[in-house]
Amino acid sequence: MNIEILNTGTELLLGSVINTHLAFFGEALFGLGLRIARQSCVPDGPPIGEALQESFRRGADVVLATGGLGPTSDDITRDLVAQLLGRELREDAGILSDIRAKFAKFGRKTINPNIARQAQVPAGAQVLYNHHGTAPGLYVPAGKDAAGAPTPHLFLLPGPPREMRPMFSEQVLPILKSLLPAAETPPGLRLYRLVGIGESAVEEQVGEALAALGGGLEIGYCARSGEVDLRLIGEESLLARAEAIVVPALQKYLVSSRGESLEQVIVRLLREQKKTLAVAESCTGGLLAHRLTNVTGASDAFPAGLTTYIDPIKTKLLGVAPETIAQDGGAVSAPVASAMAAGVRQIAGTDYALSTTGFAGPDGGREGKPIGTIFIGLATPGRAEPLVKRMFFPTTDRETFKYRAAQAAFDLLRRELIGQGET
Amino acid sequence: MNIEILNTGTELLLGSVINTHLAFFGEALFGLGLRIARQSCVPDGPPIGEALQESFRRGADVVLATGGLGPTSDDITRDLVAQLLGRELREDAGILSDIRAKFAKFGRKTINPNIARQAQVPAGAQVLYNHHGTAPGLYVPAGKDAAGAPTPHLFLLPGPPREMRPMFSEQVLPILKSLLPAAETPPGLRLYRLVGIGESAVEEQVGEALAALGGGLEIGYCARSGEVDLRLIGEESLLARAEAIVVPALQKYLVSSRGESLEQVIVRLLREQKKTLAVAESCTGGLLAHRLTNVTGASDAFPAGLTTYIDPIKTKLLGVAPETIAQDGGAVSAPVASAMAAGVRQIAGTDYALSTTGFAGPDGGREGKPIGTIFIGLATPGRAEPLVKRMFFPTTDRETFKYRAAQAAFDLLRRELIGQGET
Repeated sequence: MNIEILNTGTELLLGSVINTHLAFFGEALFGLGLRIARQSCVPDGPPIGEALQESFRRGADVVLATGGLGPTSDDITRDLVAQLLGRELREDAGILSDIRAKFAKFGRKTINPNIARQAQVPAGAQVLYNHHGTAPGLYVPAGKDAAGAPTPHLFLLPGPPREMRPMFSEQVLPILKSLLPAAETPPGLRLYRLVGIGESAVEEQVGEALAALGGGLEIGYCARSGEVDLRLIGEESLLARAEAIVVPALQKYLVSSRGESLEQVIVRLLREQKKTLAVAESCTGGLLAHRLTNVTGASDAFPAGLTTYIDPIKTKLLGVAPETIAQDGGAVSAPVASAMAAGVRQIAGTDYALSTTGFAGPDGGREGKPIGTIFIGLATPGRAEPLVKRMFFPTTDRETFKYRAAQAAFDLLRRELIGQGET
Repeated sequence: MNIEILNTGTELLLGSVINTHLAFFGEALFGLGLRIARQSCVPDGPPIGEALQESFRRGADVVLATGGLGPTSDDITRDLVAQLLGRELREDAGILSDIRAKFAKFGRKTINPNIARQAQVPAGAQVLYNHHGTAPGLYVPAGKDAAGAPTPHLFLLPGPPREMRPMFSEQVLPILKSLLPAAETPPGLRLYRLVGIGESAVEEQVGEALAALGGGLEIGYCARSGEVDLRLIGEESLLARAEAIVVPALQKYLVSSRGESLEQVIVRLLREQKKTLAVAESCTGGLLAHRLTNVTGASDAFPAGLTTYIDPIKTKLLGVAPETIAQDGGAVSAPVASAMAAGVRQIAGTDYALSTTGFAGPDGGREGKPIGTIFIGLATPGRAEPLVKRMFFPTTDRETFKYRAAQAAFDLLRRELIGQGET
């Protein structure tokens, strides 16, 4: 099944919004054994029709289009599709009364014509209910366009992710399933997430042995900030043989074989071991806490995080002595990282503690400690003194620095939790 | 100038990586008055060539392609382009010795053939130096393809953002500038970021008056989690007249007229007023701190954030009395939000303090306080007791809940700082 995605919206092409739809679709569709052949993004307006026609000509079986269904005058996807397919638009009384009811809840008794336009449905289309907004989605089954050429199964979905995602999972996926041939077993995916090793070194370690397995095993590599993904797709029996190659060779760097994030792995390991973690953050500024609390069940393992962004607060809240801060000319130092980790572990009463102190830039840095320098502290039950690692992540933006620093801090703890920590 | 973007990489279509390139390009190009006409994404392999040919046929003047230049066997963009354009690939001795030097730094004396392949350059292409990785980028000026058809200015850029972004800013933008006609003044952009109002209400307030201005003013609306963007593009004199309509009508909801984020606005306002802020987070779990510390200069305004994720820690670190927590059946309550805000303000010695406590889900919630319920506390110099707001953000995922809660908390403080706070 040849699936294409069309994301519409001038804001995506101007850079005011990051397109997260593609990643969401990709993951959800792979669960059905489906792959996306192509994704496109066009501005609001006539290019939407042109891009749809190109998809039709490429022979797409399914097109998932997002955006342009809302209540403002630049929302014209519905009209363009009706025109392209030669279908009349009819007002759906059920949708209209539903929209009126939603607005009435906010105390609005009348709705303007643009809002009412959301109740227009092309002939033969099925309505997809929107539980998180007013604009419904639409499903137009495969058929013919105005000129008689074949058209794919076409799904029109709202642009805002919190409206689109539940609509897709609850209403679109079941339709797609019903379109699939029954018997086929979808291929499996292994996403080996590796930290502390480069992309080319990964291929050197396992590339030849994996290629020798044959059997149509699909092998991919992807280098990202602070991690590398090795991606294998194939039949489960083949993936099991591949795993016997990958795991022993890359054990030391392997965060997960199912694409789990580092924070998911850490929360899982801590919960399995019934241990707890606290964090004291300076240069990562709350990112460690934020990532940990994105994981369901984090409260079992993560009671407390302190962001101590200035020196007096490090002293007041974590008990870092002013002399410790002065000792090495400022708070970006090994003794401060150590005192922060020990301090937060004691205050929060946890088994483990992580700390970060560094120069994120664009200001800061000093002789011998340029921007990008970071000290990471790890306090553990077995150590008299926290372990401190000095690292260097030169970069052009704060967020990337924070992310790489968080990766390094989490990985230091992960190795400790799997019994491969430094001594 | 008709610009198209081609993002390559199977990982983007599988959903294991979110594509941030488009937003980056969109913003950077608009600075030159340039717009992206189309973006496409295809998997590694032959579809790259097909997508490039489609761009050529659509008459693109410039194509920016990302990915597939690295050191692993699935990196074949360079080869596909050489073939498509009928250009020979030649090894560039300078690049090769540079790659060898980079690997030598990590203690590796030999490099494998796939790594060396990164030194291959199509005839007539200009090398773009990679300061943050090994794979160089390439610029192939407009010319003819193997079949004699015209081809656009083609830029091949590495996939990892921390390699691609500086290469684009430092090397690609100057080339694009040199291709532009000199005299034209690029149009201006106003991105009015609005919080606390819906998309259709924004259009009702200002849509007609803006449309009546004429002059080719481009008007766009975009609804997102917890905010709406009103986007205006046009000549500066026209934008000034539009601003005189927008600002008075939407003052109350207006976070920024230049697309600043709420956290940027807050850090700016605090610094201007020489005030400080502390945060005590439960359900937002560090996101307030993380977003504040993404802003350059945050340390002047934001000394401390505490993530107190379990009840005993709220008591121990913030001084929230166990009776206060018990009073309303648990920590998700107005009295706890109030005590958290007052507690962190006192401990950190700041002028303002924000607190959050709520049910992010998927577990939690209770009678009368379902998942999505949140209490936000705001302690200020002028109030004897913190202001507490109860809000409800039902959603299907933790990250969206955290984001909307953070938006609401920041906006509560923003209104206070501009003198429009609640009494």
